[in-house]
Amino acid sequence: MTAAVPPLPDFAAVLSAAARIAPHAQRTPVLRSRSLDDFAGCELHFKCENLQRVGAFKFRGACNAIFSLDDTAAARGIVTQSSGNHGAAVALASRLRGVPATVVVPEGAPAVKLKAIAGYGATIVRCAPTMAARVAAADALVARTGGHPVHPFDDSDVIAGQGTVALELLRSEPDLDALLAPVGGGGLLSGCALTARTLRPDLEIWGAEPAGAADAHASLQENRCITDMTAHTICDGLRGHLAPRTLALLQRHIDGILVIDDDAVVEAMRLLWERLKLVVEPSGAIAFAAVLRHRDRFAGRRIGIVISGGNVDLDTLPWQAQA
Amino acid sequence: MTAAVPPLPDFAAVLSAAARIAPHAQRTPVLRSRSLDDFAGCELHFKCENLQRVGAFKFRGACNAIFSLDDTAAARGIVTQSSGNHGAAVALASRLRGVPATVVVPEGAPAVKLKAIAGYGATIVRCAPTMAARVAAADALVARTGGHPVHPFDDSDVIAGQGTVALELLRSEPDLDALLAPVGGGGLLSGCALTARTLRPDLEIWGAEPAGAADAHASLQENRCITDMTAHTICDGLRGHLAPRTLALLQRHIDGILVIDDDAVVEAMRLLWERLKLVVEPSGAIAFAAVLRHRDRFAGRRIGIVISGGNVDLDTLPWQAQA
Repeated sequence: MTAAVPPLPDFAAVLSAAARIAPHAQRTPVLRSRSLDDFAGCELHFKCENLQRVGAFKFRGACNAIFSLDDTAAARGIVTQSSGNHGAAVALASRLRGVPATVVVPEGAPAVKLKAIAGYGATIVRCAPTMAARVAAADALVARTGGHPVHPFDDSDVIAGQGTVALELLRSEPDLDALLAPVGGGGLLSGCALTARTLRPDLEIWGAEPAGAADAHASLQENRCITDMTAHTICDGLRGHLAPRTLALLQRHIDGILVIDDDAVVEAMRLLWERLKLVVEPSGAIAFAAVLRHRDRFAGRRIGIVISGGNVDLDTLPWQAQA
Repeated sequence: MTAAVPPLPDFAAVLSAAARIAPHAQRTPVLRSRSLDDFAGCELHFKCENLQRVGAFKFRGACNAIFSLDDTAAARGIVTQSSGNHGAAVALASRLRGVPATVVVPEGAPAVKLKAIAGYGATIVRCAPTMAARVAAADALVARTGGHPVHPFDDSDVIAGQGTVALELLRSEPDLDALLAPVGGGGLLSGCALTARTLRPDLEIWGAEPAGAADAHASLQENRCITDMTAHTICDGLRGHLAPRTLALLQRHIDGILVIDDDAVVEAMRLLWERLKLVVEPSGAIAFAAVLRHRDRFAGRRIGIVISGGNVDLDTLPWQAQA
């Protein structure tokens, strides 16, 4: 059953987003490491969205969506549901816009991410840890308060905002051969894919998805949004399911999704900490893990990798938990 | 007893060093964090030498010294003694120059740093964990092999190389009010001080030194190199003592040394990991700790902070060991 696809953002929307968020968002650096190049056997260009405000690319989309609203709509406040980085992004962007935000958070969300949401001044509403409960709680809040819902990825303004990651990366590194980004709900990957496909029609574009939450891979194979999988992965930011918008954009623009197990993610994450000296969360390391697990495909080529976030509980690191 | 001061490097030597190391060294980014600015109450500009090759500023000085040698001298090989980052820096710079390196390492040096030295292809010679044993072992190697000694800081070429940190920082941020850098043997601080004083005579220049190894602070008070203190600090990179060259430059150029206890270092280190998303070693966090401990002095001002290195054993983090 293919649902009707809502209007999709285009490249012009990404350019508008770039201008809209410029006063607020970081233009994140693209870092390189000769020792990681040697290790991976290719030329790696890391777009460091862990250095973005709130520590993740999510700020771009939330900022674009919230600053796109007219004053009357914005004044009624913002509502969202998120297990982490998107919630913090909505909280900060709302504060910058000067409007209230309410974030529905499922039980079990990482404490460090909850702390950030509260720290940026949003009201937190807890719910059961299922996507259905999250959506129901957010819908109820919207109905009750008249607040504007900003979905983590099924929102054209959010997708266009995330696309600015690829816009900046390809403007600074125009000669890449391939681009890899993580995929959960698909906002980052679809925004980057539509941007990269416009700027560089010949560029390879890959998603990287945890084996324990490989619904996007399955959704692309079956040409429908699979939303009934239960996620089991250390990548807490990649547990979402595709929505009609993101599925449509991925179908159109990407070369494929590489499915990566958690052990490879932890290994890649540790390498990024050791060699690149960056604090990267598991979800943020998966695109690099995909390059390491598919060495032959990327050997000798110029690869852009999106490090999507760096919000980690520093008291319990995954390589220590495994010991 | 004041020893005769050997010839000191000048600003021209720093400019020469910058040109000499440019093909090999990273031009490291200057990162900012609005949340850390709010937290510290001033405007922070972090010069990220943890993103330098080998993960520390030490590569600059070693590279300058080793590439300054003529071919005949270089071919006899390089000898040094180091508990860590300088050893790795000499190992890598020697490999790039295509000459052998031998590094004397005291027992008890961090495993992660030893691994790096070996990884870059240097020969490791172990010795007892005293400065006397290190110097004696290095001297014996120089006598036996005819190798060229590259002291970690008591070397004009090394000091000039470290000065390129301040050169890059002040070229990118010309309006700083103050500059802070860690001080162990004083190579980084003295090179940065002579550079900064030339470019910006009115700039405040401060060192930051661990309370458990505050020999530089005492040496400046007594106008002599105090070399008989035993260090007790988590800052393994800051256990060295000043040498005549570095003492002379610090006497001439800096405003003072701020002495910081280890608890403050660990707190600052964790903040840098959490908010700046950077892996920073304890020694690399001490200048930021000094800003936090001397809030009133730096309030509302534009502060340059050198993050000197990021080589940490990721299995045992100091805030976990304390728990």
